[in-house]
Amino acid sequence: MPLKAVKTAKFAVLDAGGLKPAKPAAAPRQAPAAAAAPPAGVTVIDDDAANVVLAKLNELNIAHRTYAHVAVPTVDEQRAALGSLPGVLTKNLLLKDKKAGTFLVTVAADRHVDMKKLPTLLGIKANANLRLTDPSILGVEKGAVSPYAAINDTKGVVTVALDSELVNSTANINTHPLRSDRTVSASPQDVVAFLEAVQHAPKILDFGGTSSAPPPPKAKAVAAKPYKKQEKPVKPQQQTKSRNKKGSKETLDRIVASKTGDFAAWYGEVITKSEMIEYGKISGCYILRPWSFGVWEQIQKALDGWIKEEPLEVQNCYFPLFVTKGALEAEEDHVEGFAPEVAWVTKSGETDLAEPIAIRPTSETIMYPEFAKWLRSHRDLPLKLNQWCSVVRWEFKYPTPFLRSREFLWQEGHTAHYTLEEADEMVYAILELYRRVYEEILAVPVIPGTKTEAEKFAGGLRTTTVEAYIAGSGRAIQGATSHNLGQNFGKIYNIAVEGEGGKKTIPWQTSWGLTTRSIGVMVMVHSDDQGLVLPPKVAPVQVVVVPIVSKTCPLSQLQSFIDQVKKELKNASIRCKVDDRGNQSPGWKYNHWEQKGVPLRLEVGPRDAAANTVMVVRRVDGVKASKPVNGLGSAIRAELDDIHQVMFAKASAARDSKVVQVTSWSDFVPALNDDCLVLTPWCSPKNQEAEDQVKERSREESLALLGLEAEDERTATSLAAKTLCVPHDQPPLPAGTKCFFTGEEATCWCLWGRSY
Amino acid sequence: MPLKAVKTAKFAVLDAGGLKPAKPAAAPRQAPAAAAAPPAGVTVIDDDAANVVLAKLNELNIAHRTYAHVAVPTVDEQRAALGSLPGVLTKNLLLKDKKAGTFLVTVAADRHVDMKKLPTLLGIKANANLRLTDPSILGVEKGAVSPYAAINDTKGVVTVALDSELVNSTANINTHPLRSDRTVSASPQDVVAFLEAVQHAPKILDFGGTSSAPPPPKAKAVAAKPYKKQEKPVKPQQQTKSRNKKGSKETLDRIVASKTGDFAAWYGEVITKSEMIEYGKISGCYILRPWSFGVWEQIQKALDGWIKEEPLEVQNCYFPLFVTKGALEAEEDHVEGFAPEVAWVTKSGETDLAEPIAIRPTSETIMYPEFAKWLRSHRDLPLKLNQWCSVVRWEFKYPTPFLRSREFLWQEGHTAHYTLEEADEMVYAILELYRRVYEEILAVPVIPGTKTEAEKFAGGLRTTTVEAYIAGSGRAIQGATSHNLGQNFGKIYNIAVEGEGGKKTIPWQTSWGLTTRSIGVMVMVHSDDQGLVLPPKVAPVQVVVVPIVSKTCPLSQLQSFIDQVKKELKNASIRCKVDDRGNQSPGWKYNHWEQKGVPLRLEVGPRDAAANTVMVVRRVDGVKASKPVNGLGSAIRAELDDIHQVMFAKASAARDSKVVQVTSWSDFVPALNDDCLVLTPWCSPKNQEAEDQVKERSREESLALLGLEAEDERTATSLAAKTLCVPHDQPPLPAGTKCFFTGEEATCWCLWGRSY
Repeated sequence: MPLKAVKTAKFAVLDAGGLKPAKPAAAPRQAPAAAAAPPAGVTVIDDDAANVVLAKLNELNIAHRTYAHVAVPTVDEQRAALGSLPGVLTKNLLLKDKKAGTFLVTVAADRHVDMKKLPTLLGIKANANLRLTDPSILGVEKGAVSPYAAINDTKGVVTVALDSELVNSTANINTHPLRSDRTVSASPQDVVAFLEAVQHAPKILDFGGTSSAPPPPKAKAVAAKPYKKQEKPVKPQQQTKSRNKKGSKETLDRIVASKTGDFAAWYGEVITKSEMIEYGKISGCYILRPWSFGVWEQIQKALDGWIKEEPLEVQNCYFPLFVTKGALEAEEDHVEGFAPEVAWVTKSGETDLAEPIAIRPTSETIMYPEFAKWLRSHRDLPLKLNQWCSVVRWEFKYPTPFLRSREFLWQEGHTAHYTLEEADEMVYAILELYRRVYEEILAVPVIPGTKTEAEKFAGGLRTTTVEAYIAGSGRAIQGATSHNLGQNFGKIYNIAVEGEGGKKTIPWQTSWGLTTRSIGVMVMVHSDDQGLVLPPKVAPVQVVVVPIVSKTCPLSQLQSFIDQVKKELKNASIRCKVDDRGNQSPGWKYNHWEQKGVPLRLEVGPRDAAANTVMVVRRVDGVKASKPVNGLGSAIRAELDDIHQVMFAKASAARDSKVVQVTSWSDFVPALNDDCLVLTPWCSPKNQEAEDQVKERSREESLALLGLEAEDERTATSLAAKTLCVPHDQPPLPAGTKCFFTGEEATCWCLWGRSY
Repeated sequence: MPLKAVKTAKFAVLDAGGLKPAKPAAAPRQAPAAAAAPPAGVTVIDDDAANVVLAKLNELNIAHRTYAHVAVPTVDEQRAALGSLPGVLTKNLLLKDKKAGTFLVTVAADRHVDMKKLPTLLGIKANANLRLTDPSILGVEKGAVSPYAAINDTKGVVTVALDSELVNSTANINTHPLRSDRTVSASPQDVVAFLEAVQHAPKILDFGGTSSAPPPPKAKAVAAKPYKKQEKPVKPQQQTKSRNKKGSKETLDRIVASKTGDFAAWYGEVITKSEMIEYGKISGCYILRPWSFGVWEQIQKALDGWIKEEPLEVQNCYFPLFVTKGALEAEEDHVEGFAPEVAWVTKSGETDLAEPIAIRPTSETIMYPEFAKWLRSHRDLPLKLNQWCSVVRWEFKYPTPFLRSREFLWQEGHTAHYTLEEADEMVYAILELYRRVYEEILAVPVIPGTKTEAEKFAGGLRTTTVEAYIAGSGRAIQGATSHNLGQNFGKIYNIAVEGEGGKKTIPWQTSWGLTTRSIGVMVMVHSDDQGLVLPPKVAPVQVVVVPIVSKTCPLSQLQSFIDQVKKELKNASIRCKVDDRGNQSPGWKYNHWEQKGVPLRLEVGPRDAAANTVMVVRRVDGVKASKPVNGLGSAIRAELDDIHQVMFAKASAARDSKVVQVTSWSDFVPALNDDCLVLTPWCSPKNQEAEDQVKERSREESLALLGLEAEDERTATSLAAKTLCVPHDQPPLPAGTKCFFTGEEATCWCLWGRSY
């Protein structure tokens, strides 16, 4: 069942002094060219008569301006896309108490709403159990709630409340007209007038103090002025007519679910309609079509190159798919970690095998008996092997393409070293490469850290990890892990070398893996309601060239120009494709390639050919620019690099706003309910008992706070907080800081979250 | 049991007008610098006192010269290595008849020995059943038999016979002194004298006519003169002292078996001692260590690049490892072909699966149900997919690393086309790439052709193949196959598209695969008794640099020079390694890297550093040359290219000498027994019944001719001839030519052989 988080927590957003992305966020790309111009990726549009809010505003002669943009269902995304617009963004809470009724509360985006005081402010019972409720009663999706939605409350069950600071400001209110890919800018007085006109005269509430939102940009020349109701509305400025012929007659199987409305359904649509994934005949096994396998190939190419280079000089190899029962079960903790998920081959043809044979869930137990044969002297060390292969873990819990599947592709590295220090060096060197895969290749920010005892790899000494954050689900996800195995497996499998002094020594081992899960994380972090948004480094096609053909300008007339464009791109080693299909319109192709997430589209028409230019359109933010064909290769390379930076900065901003420090238990579950990753002072990464208690209590309190019954194990488990890691980049921990849970002396900051 | 072929066949060696290698054999690389100098790769050596033949020659004061070279167990190899030496090479047959006794017959290398007349010539019963016998009774391996071996026949059971033409010539006889990596040159008179001295005065036999061997090079100034017995023997000319310190004190686990003596044991030693293969815990599953996986990576890189390029533009993808029972069994012929070898998963953890799930033996049945979803219109065609993965075929017959294993790595390509013609074009384009992999990457000559009906892919329309030849075992091996599947799978899996006229059409499909078997073929074709010989294109290390260090010249003194050498090589993109281990001598390293087959060794000592040169030594033929460090990169590149040509030419010569045309049945089995691939006029590739009869009769006659009982099925099956293919390069087939077996009108030349 869908869960709604109550946004109630008081906590500080962590500043850059604490946990910061490994790369500084890119500077804002582009200031508005003129003060009246919308930000990059945003277009002023004619009002859509089909939109009842816009129609009503026109009917009421309310001056307003409507902006079209990518869907920005969260405030953070809206701020990223529209933050430079004059006016104030809002936070809109649709809250319900069974007895007291339903309230639509709109405040400045950055105001903290104290949920304890809210009932009193609203004039209802102080102990009312207000919780977020499904906005579909207002005919809108989660990310599109705003005061305008009151227009759909024809039964009059919803009470609207506005922050008095918003209403008393001269700054325009910028908020959604029933859809999250549109923003309407209008004066607060006019918003009130609208509400009055639709029989929802708002309560004006004083939340006390001032919001932490930036002051309205009064200094700016074109800060919205309050218009008088009877003034003739100012017609939005006409933009260059879009050449994106969306709505052309051919039908494209578009994505229906929205990222904010139903994240799981949206994800399923994105990965199938972009042709990344096909569901095969066997549950939990997925087909990686060329569009996703091409991404994997780029990831492989980068990581494989790095691990083979000096100083690591890892060598690739291939060990069998199968492992004997005896070898698999030799290490007790390890087998306990994997045994329930192991797939067993028991027959060949019609013949029963003498003994069942397991399919590798991971290859420690296959490789290390061989290490024992090969390693004789300290001179045989280090041994550094890696293989790219698939492994099978027959999980019965909720398979999800890329994230959790019964067979998945990965690389698994396995090394042996003479000293613990060398093994640790290896572990950290690999972790750094994993960070680079996520941040430099996939444009996904991650938090490197060390797992607690409870969460470490079964049978190992310690596990390091890079943790990513999925804003769409408010959950953390383990990106990749690098383990120091200590001497444990060496003891089990009798690996020993003659040391420098002639003494037998057990080598120190490491293992580390990165899987196709990374593709799923990339999709979840970057994509939007139009479909995939691919980071340029991994896009199988980085640039699609769409010829603008017509009866008066057939393809043949453009061919030599297109060839020239293609040559420029090929010479710059850009992966490009010319979509010269004759049976689809340019508009259809635009939508098709947007859905597939190609970073750049080049529109090439007769006027472009005449001017020796191409129109370049960015998938990430819709920014268009005409570029000369001369020097196009390097211009496109620069554009691709910039897109990477923009994607990384956007994802970092979304993540950073959801990483919070909490020092007392009372703030912990509310922060989780606000989709946050929570940094807490922690007694010890070895205190498994306390960790279990946090898990259990957070689960119980979440259920209680959200007013839910634990209907099934999945719901309950998914609400529990897990430790993600002890981040390597630790905020300062003053002496005497207490553990947020046990009250003992804290030894570190630990990162918690709900997790995949 | 080892089988010995009786060399009796009369047949013509196919000339270049018939079947020829795709590339012309390289011209001889290097003429002897001076007439007295040995050919490239051959060194004149001091006599080895440990060799009883050489010791005896010295004792007898017989003038002779001893040459050291790579092992040349066959005449072809000996000719390749020593053909330019003055003198005559010999063919040596150790033959036995149970009653008449054992005979060592030595003739000029190219003389045809008519086995029917031989008994009479030898003075034994005309119907004596002479057959080749194990030379271990003379204390030598198969490739090292020569008249000198008589010295070991202390019991006097062997009768020695010499070709009178040999004895009466003035040309020296060049033959092995008990080992195939040495050749002794001595006058015929002295050979006779030796035999007399060891109580084996030879029979001198007149075989009639003259041998087809080239006349002795009388014109050459230094043609060996017959020495008088009492003359002081001429000491062989002292060569530059070899810097290869073989026999240094460290022990290297050397290869014991010889390629000619026990091919299977030799192969097992080569692949394990070179660190290519480790035998895992599960029979038939092998570990590809970095040294073989690195070869596979080079093969992948080449082929993957070619198939992705225009015009093929195949896309990579990944389909699941598992297939449902229903999908696997949908195509009747196909399932019949694979079912007995399918591995079934029936349990996960402790839980029985509802239905067993198969591990892919190949992916037609996994992929094509998806094709049915994706292919709607002719515009969706062609669809061209490929995956690199492992497949499982749980065979119970004699697994051999690379050649036949229960799990193996491959690529499998699967395409769908609108017309049969396009599908055929695809099939042939891929076959040509497979030929290039073998010939241009692995330096192994192959014969492209089409399989007969009996041998085609189960469920397909027709199968094309590239067939290689393993001289060491006298067997053919299927290199890779490319299938036209017709519309058969399309019908089964309901794949249909709307055609251009609106009519439903079933696409024409292809599938094609190349496996790690290619590595095994490469090893078998090129390697020798010292170990692996790697073609430069796939060698994980192309050049190994060995510093010549000593007490007076420690490594530190050479380091900057070595760095310079390494930089030159790296700049030329040459895969190189500096073996600067301090605990092994240069000699040990030479042997180690020779065993691993590295194409070039660079010896770098203080004199080299002073002269700014390096000593370059070729693995393939031992040729040494000093090269300046300036321009070393391009010199080494040229050297590597030349090595490839030499390896290809050598393999082609060995193969070509064993591809024969046979037009009547009586010559068929004898040719097989002479390790030949046999081209015959054939009635029809569709005549499966006749093909089965040939298989059965060749098996029976082989057993009879070799005097063997069919002790086990393996022996018997391995003696049967199979059709390998109908070669695409067909010799002329005059009208009226009859099938060699049925006597019907022949429709083609068909290639037969014993096969892996």
